[in-house]
Amino acid sequence: MNENNIKDILSAVKDNELSIDDAIKEFKELPFTDLGFAKIDNHREIRVGYPEVIYCEGKTVEQVREIIKFMLTKNNNILATRATKEMYEAVKDLNPLIRYNELGRVITAKIKPVEETKSYIAIVSAGTSDLSVVEEAKETALILGNKVKVITDVGVAGIHRLFARLEEIRAAKVVIVAAGMEGALGSVLGGLVDKPVIAVPTSVGYGANFNGLSALLSMLNSCASGVSVVNIDNGFGAAYNASMINKL
Amino acid sequence: MNENNIKDILSAVKDNELSIDDAIKEFKELPFTDLGFAKIDNHREIRVGYPEVIYCEGKTVEQVREIIKFMLTKNNNILATRATKEMYEAVKDLNPLIRYNELGRVITAKIKPVEETKSYIAIVSAGTSDLSVVEEAKETALILGNKVKVITDVGVAGIHRLFARLEEIRAAKVVIVAAGMEGALGSVLGGLVDKPVIAVPTSVGYGANFNGLSALLSMLNSCASGVSVVNIDNGFGAAYNASMINKL
Amino acid sequence: MNENNIKDILSAVKDNELSIDDAIKEFKELPFTDLGFAKIDNHREIRVGYPEVIYCEGKTVEQVREIIKFMLTKNNNILATRATKEMYEAVKDLNPLIRYNELGRVITAKIKPVEETKSYIAIVSAGTSDLSVVEEAKETALILGNKVKVITDVGVAGIHRLFARLEEIRAAKVVIVAAGMEGALGSVLGGLVDKPVIAVPTSVGYGANFNGLSALLSMLNSCASGVSVVNIDNGFGAAYNASMINKL
Amino acid sequence: MNENNIKDILSAVKDNELSIDDAIKEFKELPFTDLGFAKIDNHREIRVGYPEVIYCEGKTVEQVREIIKFMLTKNNNILATRATKEMYEAVKDLNPLIRYNELGRVITAKIKPVEETKSYIAIVSAGTSDLSVVEEAKETALILGNKVKVITDVGVAGIHRLFARLEEIRAAKVVIVAAGMEGALGSVLGGLVDKPVIAVPTSVGYGANFNGLSALLSMLNSCASGVSVVNIDNGFGAAYNASMINKL
Amino acid sequence: MNENNIKDILSAVKDNELSIDDAIKEFKELPFTDLGFAKIDNHREIRVGYPEVIYCEGKTVEQVREIIKFMLTKNNNILATRATKEMYEAVKDLNPLIRYNELGRVITAKIKPVEETKSYIAIVSAGTSDLSVVEEAKETALILGNKVKVITDVGVAGIHRLFARLEEIRAAKVVIVAAGMEGALGSVLGGLVDKPVIAVPTSVGYGANFNGLSALLSMLNSCASGVSVVNIDNGFGAAYNASMINKL
Amino acid sequence: MNENNIKDILSAVKDNELSIDDAIKEFKELPFTDLGFAKIDNHREIRVGYPEVIYCEGKTVEQVREIIKFMLTKNNNILATRATKEMYEAVKDLNPLIRYNELGRVITAKIKPVEETKSYIAIVSAGTSDLSVVEEAKETALILGNKVKVITDVGVAGIHRLFARLEEIRAAKVVIVAAGMEGALGSVLGGLVDKPVIAVPTSVGYGANFNGLSALLSMLNSCASGVSVVNIDNGFGAAYNASMINKL
Amino acid sequence: MNENNIKDILSAVKDNELSIDDAIKEFKELPFTDLGFAKIDNHREIRVGYPEVIYCEGKTVEQVREIIKFMLTKNNNILATRATKEMYEAVKDLNPLIRYNELGRVITAKIKPVEETKSYIAIVSAGTSDLSVVEEAKETALILGNKVKVITDVGVAGIHRLFARLEEIRAAKVVIVAAGMEGALGSVLGGLVDKPVIAVPTSVGYGANFNGLSALLSMLNSCASGVSVVNIDNGFGAAYNASMINKL
Amino acid sequence: MNENNIKDILSAVKDNELSIDDAIKEFKELPFTDLGFAKIDNHREIRVGYPEVIYCEGKTVEQVREIIKFMLTKNNNILATRATKEMYEAVKDLNPLIRYNELGRVITAKIKPVEETKSYIAIVSAGTSDLSVVEEAKETALILGNKVKVITDVGVAGIHRLFARLEEIRAAKVVIVAAGMEGALGSVLGGLVDKPVIAVPTSVGYGANFNGLSALLSMLNSCASGVSVVNIDNGFGAAYNASMINKL
Repeated sequence: MNENNIKDILSAVKDNELSIDDAIKEFKELPFTDLGFAKIDNHREIRVGYPEVIYCEGKTVEQVREIIKFMLTKNNNILATRATKEMYEAVKDLNPLIRYNELGRVITAKIKPVEETKSYIAIVSAGTSDLSVVEEAKETALILGNKVKVITDVGVAGIHRLFARLEEIRAAKVVIVAAGMEGALGSVLGGLVDKPVIAVPTSVGYGANFNGLSALLSMLNSCASGVSVVNIDNGFGAAYNASMINKL
Repeated sequence: MNENNIKDILSAVKDNELSIDDAIKEFKELPFTDLGFAKIDNHREIRVGYPEVIYCEGKTVEQVREIIKFMLTKNNNILATRATKEMYEAVKDLNPLIRYNELGRVITAKIKPVEETKSYIAIVSAGTSDLSVVEEAKETALILGNKVKVITDVGVAGIHRLFARLEEIRAAKVVIVAAGMEGALGSVLGGLVDKPVIAVPTSVGYGANFNGLSALLSMLNSCASGVSVVNIDNGFGAAYNASMINKL
Repeated sequence: MNENNIKDILSAVKDNELSIDDAIKEFKELPFTDLGFAKIDNHREIRVGYPEVIYCEGKTVEQVREIIKFMLTKNNNILATRATKEMYEAVKDLNPLIRYNELGRVITAKIKPVEETKSYIAIVSAGTSDLSVVEEAKETALILGNKVKVITDVGVAGIHRLFARLEEIRAAKVVIVAAGMEGALGSVLGGLVDKPVIAVPTSVGYGANFNGLSALLSMLNSCASGVSVVNIDNGFGAAYNASMINKL
Repeated sequence: MNENNIKDILSAVKDNELSIDDAIKEFKELPFTDLGFAKIDNHREIRVGYPEVIYCEGKTVEQVREIIKFMLTKNNNILATRATKEMYEAVKDLNPLIRYNELGRVITAKIKPVEETKSYIAIVSAGTSDLSVVEEAKETALILGNKVKVITDVGVAGIHRLFARLEEIRAAKVVIVAAGMEGALGSVLGGLVDKPVIAVPTSVGYGANFNGLSALLSMLNSCASGVSVVNIDNGFGAAYNASMINKL
Repeated sequence: MNENNIKDILSAVKDNELSIDDAIKEFKELPFTDLGFAKIDNHREIRVGYPEVIYCEGKTVEQVREIIKFMLTKNNNILATRATKEMYEAVKDLNPLIRYNELGRVITAKIKPVEETKSYIAIVSAGTSDLSVVEEAKETALILGNKVKVITDVGVAGIHRLFARLEEIRAAKVVIVAAGMEGALGSVLGGLVDKPVIAVPTSVGYGANFNGLSALLSMLNSCASGVSVVNIDNGFGAAYNASMINKL
Repeated sequence: MNENNIKDILSAVKDNELSIDDAIKEFKELPFTDLGFAKIDNHREIRVGYPEVIYCEGKTVEQVREIIKFMLTKNNNILATRATKEMYEAVKDLNPLIRYNELGRVITAKIKPVEETKSYIAIVSAGTSDLSVVEEAKETALILGNKVKVITDVGVAGIHRLFARLEEIRAAKVVIVAAGMEGALGSVLGGLVDKPVIAVPTSVGYGANFNGLSALLSMLNSCASGVSVVNIDNGFGAAYNASMINKL
Repeated sequence: MNENNIKDILSAVKDNELSIDDAIKEFKELPFTDLGFAKIDNHREIRVGYPEVIYCEGKTVEQVREIIKFMLTKNNNILATRATKEMYEAVKDLNPLIRYNELGRVITAKIKPVEETKSYIAIVSAGTSDLSVVEEAKETALILGNKVKVITDVGVAGIHRLFARLEEIRAAKVVIVAAGMEGALGSVLGGLVDKPVIAVPTSVGYGANFNGLSALLSMLNSCASGVSVVNIDNGFGAAYNASMINKL
Repeated sequence: MNENNIKDILSAVKDNELSIDDAIKEFKELPFTDLGFAKIDNHREIRVGYPEVIYCEGKTVEQVREIIKFMLTKNNNILATRATKEMYEAVKDLNPLIRYNELGRVITAKIKPVEETKSYIAIVSAGTSDLSVVEEAKETALILGNKVKVITDVGVAGIHRLFARLEEIRAAKVVIVAAGMEGALGSVLGGLVDKPVIAVPTSVGYGANFNGLSALLSMLNSCASGVSVVNIDNGFGAAYNASMINKL
């Protein structure tokens, strides 16, 4: 409901085409969201091109299939995270464009084209065990239309490997760092690049990593400025964030 | 040491103005950082205009005075966080441009101009008790050359206050949210704006907030995409991050 | 043992129908609970109509069957929470009124009628993954004789969905909110309704939700007044509480 | 802005006392909250008689004085929690009705009458060290218009003390329990009364109570149904909640 | 109220000296505790000779003085733990027998004699920093009438010191072990003596002892059988427990 | 090596049946434990009649069988805790006296008689879900020669059940309390009996019991004196402790 | 790139065999690591003889096979930790020297000889349940060329067992201690030997050991000097560390 | 008691100078420590030259003065950690060699010479705020007779600073790393040097470092091998450990 709507109602009242009571009723009958939250909807429209994201954990195979089926009718791009292989098997007949990244546990379908960014997101990871988070981030970034460069296995235990790839990382517009154990790569990179660094702690590690807590605290306490953090193993969240920044 | 330096040495060698042994010596005498990390230095040069940041906690008044004094000789802008009033009293005679934000515990001095951004950073906070974090973030963002819009006291307990300011928040290029207690403002804003949101949990609250842990976990677990998190009460970190994004 | 019992004994003593020693014996032979805790029993009687509640976790299928079998002989309504499908299969032959809510893991049997409340309990949830808690709460509320309105998937990531349903929520006498991840829905609703809000943190979420800890802390620290909290995933407890309030 | 305001404007338009443009302007000039959140405001109006609550922690003496001064101009009842004696000294000259409860750290001023409830809230506490929480709860409940009965020092270490007061507790419409250490009183009372019990864990205790964590977990895990929990030491929150229920 | 009281009432009823209604009234007027909890009171009586214990933390100097003053009128022995020196100064004039153990923060007054046990309690501690807990335990044990043997500074870092005192420890009827840091003395002693060992973790130690958590967990996880644990720094609780066992 | 052994050697030296060098050799050849820790061995001898205890968790079926087989050759009573049914199946042919308590996961074999105590241990539990801990405690207490009285399902949610059994509990020499959830039964009993109470927190409960942490903290923070605590679910440890006290 | 390389380039420039631009290019084209991190590579060369270590957790059987296959082509010794039996089955055909330690979950292959140390590492453990950590440490130490002495089952519950083996432990150059539960063995040994002690907390134990946290905190808080700690269950890390020290 | 003592007794028995009973008595009367733990004492003698260490925290000024006074009579070197300036003032008159390191809170007195090591310990720290830990470690290492090289302010936020000092670090025999915040320096150094690295987490940092927990977990989870950890802020422990290794 915008100014014009209000004007129309007022004119109708003034012209005796609408009784005061009916005018009040119109004000009151307008769905709340339409009145106060029209902007929210517009705001959703701005995001057109972004796929709806389905978080599969805690959903049944049937629910996932129903959601994807429905979204395909709306011609949406599909991004389903934390999807099991069984879910993929259950949906792959719905559209030939449906793909599954097993390591990243991601189902995607690029139904309609998304304009690709000029700049790229660097996704950097410490060890091979962080790869599932890397893949989730990569698939998310790609379906959102980003160029991506993936640089793995450059953990600080052999820091020269990181330096060998530093130029590529610095050339990115935004950097995602996935690291488990002590998560030191976040701080080290934060001190070496002047781009926003989004750190993803991973749950990889021995006993006292407490399912990612050690890397999480490490990254939150980074002595390097310019590092922000998302949830443990949340490759999707990092990439979504990075995509927003990459598209600025 | 940059390309020109190398060129100069090589030319001198070529022209017999410098013996090979002396040339090698020059290479070797150069501080390691100059040689191996020229790129890092260049990288630092790119950051020119950025003030060196002094984290005052755990430093003595004398140390802070010495550091600021030295930096002023280099004509640097000054940003000293977590500074006590006593520190300010001890340094204010060093330069007439030195200012102190008591609430934010920040000493600044804009010695040389920094080009101001066109876009602005929105700094949004939940309650009046979060103001010290807001002020730290604001001073940081300003000294780094950002336009800033501060919107306070829009916590979710009275969510209409937030909606009244939503347009201003959405018009920002990047949003900082500071909130204590349950930190819900991070998620709510994350769902309402399509800009990167940097959440700062604050240590404000009753007993079981455990010095900011509740807001921290809340923000890390935000159901809204596009929210990344910095350390508890880390207004500086949020603003540094936001500045990087705002200047992209 | 109530006042009438005491009167009868005293009358019998007075009328020499009962010797003092026998009277003392009767007092002493009465189970302690009957004597000292008559009020407790009365208090239980007041609750008539309330089903006995069986918490199945940690019980064997056989134990659950025995308890339900016994309770049916007493004509009780049945509410068994955290019941597996196997338990249901083992008891369904005991009475044709036995039903199973698989999502909520609840076995119920409405053996005798319970008067239905006029006012209703609103059960509001953030995401589809919170549904099992919602179902447990709903079944509990229904068997206790409450009218219930369930409103799901109105999490703060898309807050307009919540506003669209606000009237219905406000019309309830008491509101249950189930939310995982950051649990922000608790605070947001607490700020929007003037009815008691009972918040149930759920264990839904990524890594650092620590099995519901993040939502739990979030809800305990709610900046909105009027929100109280029950245990993680404790849909039953929330509904039992809400029922008490709804029946006031 | 309520229905009458809208009617007035519409009438003025209809009667040509107000041009359409001016009417639109009035709508637009109204603070957003008035327009889009009329229901919220109405909802606030319903709460008339409720004092605005000032949470003093983290505020300066001056800020508290300014807020109270302003609220007095609006003829509001005053409830300021976590107020230091210094704050009280700074505001007491503002109005002769201003009182201070030192133990509960609460400033109140009953400027306009609030209708008193018929039923009462029982505030029960385990030990004398919980008294400050009890006082905060009591002052809150009173200023909100509730009858209150305070029953202290009935902790489970001497459970007969509790039984001696049980009738009074059972006669309440809603019960607040404040207990530190192991917080067992919450469960014990939950099993003895059939009214909603709101438990407030307090930070009272030896080493491993971890500032109230032990009582908090204890109360959340209560084996008795009908117990909900608020934050550690949050007497205000418990009483606000209880008041809502007491007024149903 | 015991059997005789009931008999009296019944006799009076039988003899028409008391109407039935009045008899019921008497039953009902009797304080609940007298009726249902006579055993509890008797049980308290059995404990005669035990001083009432005053936990001073969270109490004001005035409150402590009032309680002690009152107890002295009842000729009770006094044991006040966690008492500040200021409290002692405020009460010492009440009775010449009042003493203060500054290290243990305990006020005692042996007003009436307590029979001394034949067997003794051994109180063993690891380091000199645990002495305040040792003193609290010692004063408690003494006022309760126990013989006590204190053996300090026998921590496992120099385990030969422990062995030199082992015979004395083994000759005790029950052993209290106070240890901070890693609390290993609990397990070591548990493996060397065949008496019940009550372990008190103390909050002594460097950073990651987390205020006694490390010693607490250590003692709870003792690989030696026969070790039970009380709260951190709870010398009183350990001694109270040990006294119960010593008097069996 | 006991006093008699030393006497024999000395006699042989005196009688020239043994050279001094050979005597020294005998002393030195004796395993260190025999020499330096003769008292420990004596100490072990005092414990004769106590079964060796096998903690089966983390051991293979084969290891358990080998240990039991060996102990049987020494005519020891057997107590194997945390034993799987598979372990029982693998050992039951070793001796016809071998029994298995499935609920308590305990293998026992009473090979030689143990003198039974006159006094008994009361094992009290809150809910039926605590039964496995109760059974572990019971089997341990029995094989160690104690009389045992088991009183289950007297949790504080229906405290009258506890009072009905109080006499039996008070008649015990030492009381074990097993309770999960909020573990309030420990404090309540501690306030009602004047015997040592050993509390076992159990891991039974909803979400925020954090695997027994809530009951553990609750019991450690008991407001009642005379309660000591063993590890979560450690029925064995509680019974071993109680047995020591029961035999004093 | 070493001094000679620089000399060659400079000579070529001087001799006009290389233009200045091409010389600069050569400098710039050199991989960063070759230039700046030559020392790192040398440093790796010093470690020759050390096997590359494969951490198998989170890797697929195929990945492990590929890595081992590749390393064998380079004639490396193999050390693969946290390897499943399935992994071993998948690689054992690659080389006849491949062995599997099932208890320690370690695959090794001694392809080329490593000089054995004269001094030895003592690996001491508390209980039989710590054996898997002991075996991981032992295999690691052996493949790195250390002499090893393993001393198990000397936990502090029967401390005489430890003293019987003390000489052997003291004769080691460095000591590894693996212990779960309360981990007291670390402190006890730290007080008895004057060699560096590396403590490995293990995750063995009842409820409140919290997966090794109790032993970890215990060891970090050791009252004995000379004890340092590695991660929970990290037998490999302890042995790698010990090997470094043993080879000094 | 050594072999000669035993021989003397035996000879006396043989020669009838000592009755068997008296001989047994002598064995029994010998202090346990003399008999069984002679080796422990010798072991202490081996450590001669090491100063006794006084941990001042929790001790009174008087106690510290008494201990130091006593030790000076034995001509011991003094090392007192966590000493306040007040303690220093109270002891400095005892000996002119007494010094105080205020930053490190360490009192030392080198009364007798200690042979200095040839190799040195490198003490490396991340930020200037870690200096107090560095100073504690340095003073400890020096008094124990080690050469020390201190390298500060080389945190990973500006990693080039670390590389500039790498040669010096690598030339040490053992490396101490002190770092707060995310403690990444431990891992980074662990990957760059092939000497044992002893990491000291410090409690320096913003909110979610939780008093050193983040650095502690970070260091325990180091992805680099060869890193062991001591307690938070435990500079003394690190240096004691390093000294042991440096002297091998």
